[in-house]
Parts: sequence; C-alpha cells; structure tokens
Amino acid sequence: MPISYNLIAGKNLDRLTALSDGVFAVAMTLLVLDLHAPVAAAIHSEGDLLHALAALSPRLLTYLLSFMTLGIFWMGQQAQFNLLQRSDRDLGWVHIAFLAAVSLIPFSTALLAEFIRYKAALILYWLNILILGLLLLAAWCVVRRRGLLKPDVPAEVNGAIVRRIVWAQALYAFGAALCVFDNWWSIAFIISVQLGFATAFPLRPFKG
Amino acid sequence: MPISYNLIAGKNLDRLTALSDGVFAVAMTLLVLDLHAPVAAAIHSEGDLLHALAALSPRLLTYLLSFMTLGIFWMGQQAQFNLLQRSDRDLGWVHIAFLAAVSLIPFSTALLAEFIRYKAALILYWLNILILGLLLLAAWCVVRRRGLLKPDVPAEVNGAIVRRIVWAQALYAFGAALCVFDNWWSIAFIISVQLGFATAFPLRPFKG
Amino acid sequence: MPISYNLIAGKNLDRLTALSDGVFAVAMTLLVLDLHAPVAAAIHSEGDLLHALAALSPRLLTYLLSFMTLGIFWMGQQAQFNLLQRSDRDLGWVHIAFLAAVSLIPFSTALLAEFIRYKAALILYWLNILILGLLLLAAWCVVRRRGLLKPDVPAEVNGAIVRRIVWAQALYAFGAALCVFDNWWSIAFIISVQLGFATAFPLRPFKG
Amino acid sequence: MPISYNLIAGKNLDRLTALSDGVFAVAMTLLVLDLHAPVAAAIHSEGDLLHALAALSPRLLTYLLSFMTLGIFWMGQQAQFNLLQRSDRDLGWVHIAFLAAVSLIPFSTALLAEFIRYKAALILYWLNILILGLLLLAAWCVVRRRGLLKPDVPAEVNGAIVRRIVWAQALYAFGAALCVFDNWWSIAFIISVQLGFATAFPLRPFKG
Repeated sequence: MPISYNLIAGKNLDRLTALSDGVFAVAMTLLVLDLHAPVAAAIHSEGDLLHALAALSPRLLTYLLSFMTLGIFWMGQQAQFNLLQRSDRDLGWVHIAFLAAVSLIPFSTALLAEFIRYKAALILYWLNILILGLLLLAAWCVVRRRGLLKPDVPAEVNGAIVRRIVWAQALYAFGAALCVFDNWWSIAFIISVQLGFATAFPLRPFKG
Repeated sequence: MPISYNLIAGKNLDRLTALSDGVFAVAMTLLVLDLHAPVAAAIHSEGDLLHALAALSPRLLTYLLSFMTLGIFWMGQQAQFNLLQRSDRDLGWVHIAFLAAVSLIPFSTALLAEFIRYKAALILYWLNILILGLLLLAAWCVVRRRGLLKPDVPAEVNGAIVRRIVWAQALYAFGAALCVFDNWWSIAFIISVQLGFATAFPLRPFKG
Repeated sequence: MPISYNLIAGKNLDRLTALSDGVFAVAMTLLVLDLHAPVAAAIHSEGDLLHALAALSPRLLTYLLSFMTLGIFWMGQQAQFNLLQRSDRDLGWVHIAFLAAVSLIPFSTALLAEFIRYKAALILYWLNILILGLLLLAAWCVVRRRGLLKPDVPAEVNGAIVRRIVWAQALYAFGAALCVFDNWWSIAFIISVQLGFATAFPLRPFKG
Repeated sequence: MPISYNLIAGKNLDRLTALSDGVFAVAMTLLVLDLHAPVAAAIHSEGDLLHALAALSPRLLTYLLSFMTLGIFWMGQQAQFNLLQRSDRDLGWVHIAFLAAVSLIPFSTALLAEFIRYKAALILYWLNILILGLLLLAAWCVVRRRGLLKPDVPAEVNGAIVRRIVWAQALYAFGAALCVFDNWWSIAFIISVQLGFATAFPLRPFKG
C-alpha cells in the first residue's frame, strides 16, 4: 500500500512558524516603501522640506495603522500556534492562504494612503482585514476538527479564541461602516479599537 | 592529512531550512510589489477607482497563482526536509539552486501578469515551475544516494515522493500545452491542479 | 470563568525573537535599495562611471551609518532577550512598536541621503534613533515590572542596561545638536560614537 | 563593580545565525528586482517579447552569478558557525560588517548588469567579493583569538578554513585581473571557479 503524500507533508509546525514570521517581517518592513523621500528638485529650503514632510503625514498614519494590523494578526496567529501539538497539511494550507492575505496588506495600505478619502479604498482595506479574520477562524476550526491541540489545553480556550476574533471583526465592520459619514471616522475608530486590543486597558470586555 | 572543507561545510540542516523559509517568505511577499495602486492623477471619482481596481484583477489572479505555486513547492521541500537526518554540501547546493528558481517566481509572475495573452510569457512561467520540479527531484536523488534519510523512514516513501513530483509536472506540462488554444485555458487548468493539490479532495489519484 | 485572551497571547519569546530578526534583516537589506546604479544613458566612458559612482558616496555613507545604527539596536534588543525567561503580551507590543521604528530607518536614511545638508532631515533621523532608545527603555521597564527575567540574572544588570541606553542617547542628542554648526559635524560625531560602541575600544567609560 | 555591557551583549549565536540567514535570504531574493518585465507598450508580437526577453540575458547571467556568490559565502559563514560553541560581541560586530557587505551584493550586481562592459563595474563587484572574503577571515581570527570554538574541533580545521578563503580570493583576484583583456573573460572565469567550488568536482586541489 503506497504511503499517502498527506502523511509526509505539512507536519512540521516549526517551519510553518518560521515561514509565517518571515512573511510578517517582510510585509511589515515593505510598508515603509510607501514612504518616499520628497523629490529633491522641489525642495529649496528647510521650510520646503518641513512642508513636504508634513504632506507625508497621512502616509505615516496608514503606515502605523497597518503595522498595528499586522501586529494584531501576528499575535492572533501566534496565540493559536502556541496551543498546537503539531500541524498537518490542511492547516498548513489555511495558514498559507492567511499569509497570502497578510502579504496583501502593503498593497491595501498603499491604496488607502493614496486614496484616503475614497470609500472604495477604505472598504477594500477592511475586506483585507475581514479575510484575515475569517482565515484565522478557519484555521482554528481545522485545529479543532483534526485534534491538533496540545493535550493540556483547557476547553475554555476555544471560546476565548472564537469570541476574540468575532468581537474584533464586529468592531472592524462597524468601523468600516462609519465611512458612510467620513473615512476619517472609520480610520479613527479602527485605530482606537486596535490600540485598545494592543494596550488591553480601556476596552476590558473585549479582552476575554 | 588536511581535513577536507567538504567535511565542514553544509552539514547544518537547520540553517538550510532557515535560509529556505526566508527565501520563500520574501519571494511570497515580493509578489505584492506587482500590484500597484492606481495613479492618483487619473482618478476623479469612486467609479474611476473601482474601474482602476477592476483593471488590476488579472494581476490579482497571477498573484494568487504564484502564491499557490510557492506554497506547493514550499510544502514539497518541507516534505523532504522532514525526512532528513542531516544535510551535506551537495544537497545544500541543490537547494540553493532550487532557491534561485524560487526567487525567479516574482519575475516570471510579473512577466505573465504584464503579458497574460502571450504564449512566450506562459511558457516561461511553466519553465520556472519545471525547473523547480526537476531540482526537487534532483535533491531527492542526492538524499537517497548519500543516505541522508532518517533511519526509520519506510522504503515506500521514495515512491510517494517521486510519483508526486512526476504527476504534478505531467499535469503542469499538459496545462502549459493548452496554451496552443488559449492562455486562459492553461491558467485555469494549472490553478485547478494546484487547488486540487492544496485541498487534496477532488483529485484523489494524484495524492499518493 | 472565561480564560483571558491575555493568558494565551504573546508568551512565545522564540517567535518574538524570530519576528525581530526578520524585521532587522529586511530593514538592513532594504537600505541598499537607496543605492541606485547610475542611469546608463548618461554614462559614455569609464571616467563617467567612476564620476557617477563617486557621486554616490554620501549615500554609501548613510548606508553604513544606518547599518551600524540597526546593528547597535539589534544588539541592544538581543541583550535584553538573552536575559528573559519568557515574554508576555505587553512586552510583545512594546517590541512591535520598536520594530515599527526599526522599519522606519530605511525611510529616515533615504531622507538623510537625499537632503544631507538639511537640518530637518538630520533631526528626523535623530528622532528615529531617539524613539528606538525610548522603546528599548520602555521594554526594559515592562520586563522589570512583570518579573520576566531569568531567575539567575544579577541585580547589577539593571543598572548596566539603563546606563547604556541613557549614555548612548545623551551622546546621540549631543551629536544631533551639533547640526547647528553643520550636518557633517553631527554625522561624523554620531558615526564615531557608533564605532566606539561597536569596537568598545576608544570610549571605555561608555562601555559599562 | 558594575557588570560590563560586554558580558551581556552578543553572546547569542542562535540570533546571529537567524539574522544572517535573514539577510542572505533577502539579499538573494532582492536580486530578482533587477529583472524587469519588458515595457508592454513596446511589445506587439510574440517575436517582440522573445526579443525583449533575450535582451535580458546578461541580467539573468549576473543574477545567477550573484546567487552563486551569495550561496558560497553563506556556506562559508555556516562552515564557521557550525564549529562555534558561542558568539561574543566582537564576533557579532565582524559578522554585522560581513552582512553589510552581503547586502551590497544586489547593488554591485545591478551595477555590473547595467555596465557589463565597464571595468569600473567589474572591479567594484570584485571589491565586494574581496571585502566578503576579508571579513570572513577576520571573523575566523576573532573566533581563534577568543577561543569560541567547540572543544572537539580538531586543530587541522584551522588550516582548511584559512586555505579555502585564501585560495578562493586568489582565484577571484586573478579572474578580476582578466578584465584587462575583456570583462567577459573575468565573468566566465569567476563563474567557472564558483561552479568548481559548488560542485567540488573538476577543481579537486581547491577543495581542501
């Protein structure tokens, strides 16, 4: 009886982790390529330069927004990996799809920075976040169905992880919906939510 | 008797793994550099932006195609690494050549995205995949000839690995040949094969 | 009682380390994107090419300056990580903020290279270094308050780490202030300080 | 007595390894950014595209040359790391300088690709290789002076490592000197030497 390729491939959790950390590290650092130094020909004084730098501030904002987005999803992926005993091929593929969405963040960010007042740009950015959330949820479902958890993981962890993802996505969706008023409302709300998740201080109910 | 440099170099499987994961992570993330935000000067309304984004869809397709390609070959390389006890210098060099072909994928992808209706672009993309397959096969031959496998690897694994690579390459070659009709036929076929490998569901005979 | 997400997330020191090494590696390598080969159309002889290469020397200087800056902060972060028993979510977030500042170095460098005689460019570069120092100090405070140190770390280490960061930042601030005379004074001073830290030879008192 | 910062920093060989693998992986993958897809506006037929691709072949050659160069120096660095028991701060700094030279390879390569008939470009490329060799030698000297080797490393290893670096650099220098005739002679010779090192077959005396 031939050995199934499925039995061989994709079991190595360490390599999935290393690939993920690599993709996150590159995506985070590529965000900076969107910050261009002003063109020298247009700058004739310190004042011109300060002016040109001030004009970069929306891009700095989207830079920080996306760095936080990537940080949050890196943490979310890590929270799952920490609980796993091993990986398998299906889980590997869900995480590769997740990484494909991670790699899109520099594009979505560049689009939002260039068209920060356009609803289409904001909604596409939010779609990217939504896909990240859905794939993280899908990864968790695979983990549970396949029994890939460490044996000592308490049952309540399941609720904590699912609740966290659902809560966060509900808040992001609400934030995206705020763009019917103005994109800046959306961005301000999403950044507040992210700061809340990062500091885990003012938004106690969403920590659980 | 002087110690051969060969005895010192290239034994460290962990570093070969780390280098490989790094190259795959960077290549995957560089794919996104091919997705450019539309030029702001040409966009005057939400409709313009949606239009410009729709025009990006062939590039999004090649992005996903190449991310899957890289995912499949990352899995294939990993499947071999999981079975190894150690590396040696020759195996190291075969994998460095493999990584050189991996690094070319962002170029082949950009070419295909730009010239998606040209047979030359499609065949070059396929050649890149072919080289990846051949080098993975070469790596496996080195592993076997040098006895680098873990002692408890069952003999049937050999067949599973070789069959898998040959099957996949046969399907890719058939897909590439479909470009005599139309490039879209080739792309659709190759993506189906890849989805089949990734989900391992509808294409049972190719799993073995 | 639901399990707090905080208990699950961010404990894995290894992954924080891997993400950090990845971001540093990419940021270091992206610096080279600022060195452009001269435009072929403008070069008609070996003399032209040598001339064009000589014109790149300020950029080579800022390349080396920034590589050293990144090297120093990589060492500084590593010095802390070596002493840790584990990470937690708050420490993870401080280091993600630190990595966001690390990723900005290629931008600050490009700006300084393009506007090497402008005080605004120099001060922005220094601000980037200042933020790196402050976040490293913040990380150390979190480590101490949370008791994340290995049990066998002697108490004097605290003083060594804090003194080092404060000394270095005082010297960088002094160097930046030298730009009231001329940017070249600032750059020469900062590079000397960095060489001093790197070789740890001529500047004995700052080693402690 | 305050604890010297030197005692804390730079001891972690694993992180130096991870940073190195990261820098090599990114530098290898950035090489591809030098291969641009032809401009669509200039291509009107399959023949045009094949023509434009053929015009890329010098760049493909420099791509492969540089990938091999990086592969060789990655192997060389790895050969040293495999023998180490630990790292220290000085060794860390020599390797950071080495990585700065590694990161320059994509620039030297782009320069050589753009000006493949110019001696200045070839000599600068060779200088980059020379610096890599010298720093690898310097790293080995630090290792020996500081006693960082594993206790079971036989004394003959020293000769093997030094001989290897000196031999290789002598051959590269000879190759570079061939540019007095023609750059293509230099490139052909250097590639032959590298293939010799990689396959370790036709150049038996240089293996030792």
